[in-house]
Amino acid sequence: MSDERITIAHGHGGLASHRLISDAFLSVYTSPELEQLDDAAVMRLPYERIAFSTDSFVVQPIFFPGGDIGKLAVAGTVNDVSVMGARPLVISVGFILEEGLLISDLEKIVQSMATECRRAGVRIATGDTKVVPKGAADKIFINTTGIGIRRKDVTLSGSNAKPGQAVILTGPAGDHGAAIVCARNDLKVSGEVLSDCRSLTDLIDDILDASGQSVSVMRDPTRGGVATTLNEISKASAVGIEIDEESVPIRDNTRAVSEILGFDPLYLANEGAILVFCDEEAVDIVLGVCSAHPSGEHAARIGTVRNDVDGKVVLRTATGGRRIMDMLAGEMLPRIC
Amino acid sequence: MSDERITIAHGHGGLASHRLISDAFLSVYTSPELEQLDDAAVMRLPYERIAFSTDSFVVQPIFFPGGDIGKLAVAGTVNDVSVMGARPLVISVGFILEEGLLISDLEKIVQSMATECRRAGVRIATGDTKVVPKGAADKIFINTTGIGIRRKDVTLSGSNAKPGQAVILTGPAGDHGAAIVCARNDLKVSGEVLSDCRSLTDLIDDILDASGQSVSVMRDPTRGGVATTLNEISKASAVGIEIDEESVPIRDNTRAVSEILGFDPLYLANEGAILVFCDEEAVDIVLGVCSAHPSGEHAARIGTVRNDVDGKVVLRTATGGRRIMDMLAGEMLPRIC
Repeated sequence: MSDERITIAHGHGGLASHRLISDAFLSVYTSPELEQLDDAAVMRLPYERIAFSTDSFVVQPIFFPGGDIGKLAVAGTVNDVSVMGARPLVISVGFILEEGLLISDLEKIVQSMATECRRAGVRIATGDTKVVPKGAADKIFINTTGIGIRRKDVTLSGSNAKPGQAVILTGPAGDHGAAIVCARNDLKVSGEVLSDCRSLTDLIDDILDASGQSVSVMRDPTRGGVATTLNEISKASAVGIEIDEESVPIRDNTRAVSEILGFDPLYLANEGAILVFCDEEAVDIVLGVCSAHPSGEHAARIGTVRNDVDGKVVLRTATGGRRIMDMLAGEMLPRIC
Repeated sequence: MSDERITIAHGHGGLASHRLISDAFLSVYTSPELEQLDDAAVMRLPYERIAFSTDSFVVQPIFFPGGDIGKLAVAGTVNDVSVMGARPLVISVGFILEEGLLISDLEKIVQSMATECRRAGVRIATGDTKVVPKGAADKIFINTTGIGIRRKDVTLSGSNAKPGQAVILTGPAGDHGAAIVCARNDLKVSGEVLSDCRSLTDLIDDILDASGQSVSVMRDPTRGGVATTLNEISKASAVGIEIDEESVPIRDNTRAVSEILGFDPLYLANEGAILVFCDEEAVDIVLGVCSAHPSGEHAARIGTVRNDVDGKVVLRTATGGRRIMDMLAGEMLPRIC
């Protein structure tokens, strides 16, 4: 089976499609909804407070140090649901496959998705597979769309940041972006640069369990990195944010790669760290929860929400200077996620 | 604006992305959830009985007689949710755009989606946009994922067909497939061949209102057409199905195109007609509802569920012969939806 490839017939909805779905997907993904093979999954949801999020993944290369497009597709949507204060419950999966894709690569990706689903406590409830002729896509694109049940004790939104709140980053900035750049350029630094790609449902739940109403914003700094995500929050909440450059956790390898290639790690994507905005008195609680969790051991407070910096994100540099940290403006890294 | 094109910067999550989202999407799609610009839409759903369906659309060409990829993406998912006996409520939209796509084409597609959403009574609650470099995709792919609230008075599933039930097709077979084939081959027949692409929520609701428990299966015969979908149902329900060839509604143009190009219209996709399995005594009611509805005026009873044809789909031909109508086996039409 290892050199079998996807053919156009796999996408026609006929016999070959049915075999692919049964061999490659249903043997790995098991959920009561999926086994029905109906046009939509039907299910009961326990509560009416729903979070709903979609993301398409086009990352290149499809396998990278620390993950692959399948793990990323599950973790990315799970995290988008989780940062809204919701427990992800089910996801849908839509594959667009290029004719000629190795079936063995598809199988690895499908397995990786199943593993990440178990880790995150979600199940795949419904799916779809399309095949396009060679050259009409690049190997494999995956859309995942998630439904989660919102906690009743918190209300999180990018528009809820309040002056005086602390800004915490739960992991080193830019690791996913740096890993993709290295993989793409076949760049070697002293140690391997691993993507931080992972589901953060547990860490997020732990933080919210411990600090409840003190947290008002959670967001994962994916495309455009910490800098761009802070700008989104600053704009949505109409507040200023001051970041202390020296306090931002950045791995030596990520810094080295950034320097070699001329990137700013604050603009490189994370896929396994989140920004948390919480009241000053909850900072130690949140950092304590993070340090006890394998996904949060490098967490640090990196800044403060201000009402005196005129709705901008400002970086206080190591030398005491201050500069505006604007949203990512031009070209940077296509197909990072 | 008419010759502006998508650039890689539109996909980076930075300034250009934000402008695209605000100019091209938020000015057209209005929903309270979408305007939050958070990582997931949060909402209250009125009941706990949920239907959840996903579909990626890769149709080529992206504009075709009777519709475009945007209308198709909304109608396709709306119909998949509706045939489960659910009222579609919200959808997510995930765009994968190729660098160089005309912004004016994107705008047309976005408008077309908004129009179809209004027609179907759904709103777009959350979305995502990725841009890939030229050559890594073909113009535009769209994933839509829908959530619907299930009716309490029916339980529909492809596995619920029962011997003795009638099989009704609500519109002419193969119109979408025939329209795509004509558009792709620049083929002219006496009249234009229009795709039947449309949301059928209203028609489906009317049928279920009128005939309630008598209907046990509804499914839209998309890829692989009526023949393949009947095979899916036959397999899932472990029943045989006998189809009367002469009773299947087929437009003259679709028949002409099929004959010229060597297709069987029973294997060509519909995107605006469904198969309904109902008890014998409800046939006239269902056909009556269809004939009163603009989307169902060509509805016809095309066959019967049997327990004496050995789990197969059998076609009774005009000359009185009988042949097995198997699932679509090999190559046919890539990128039909």
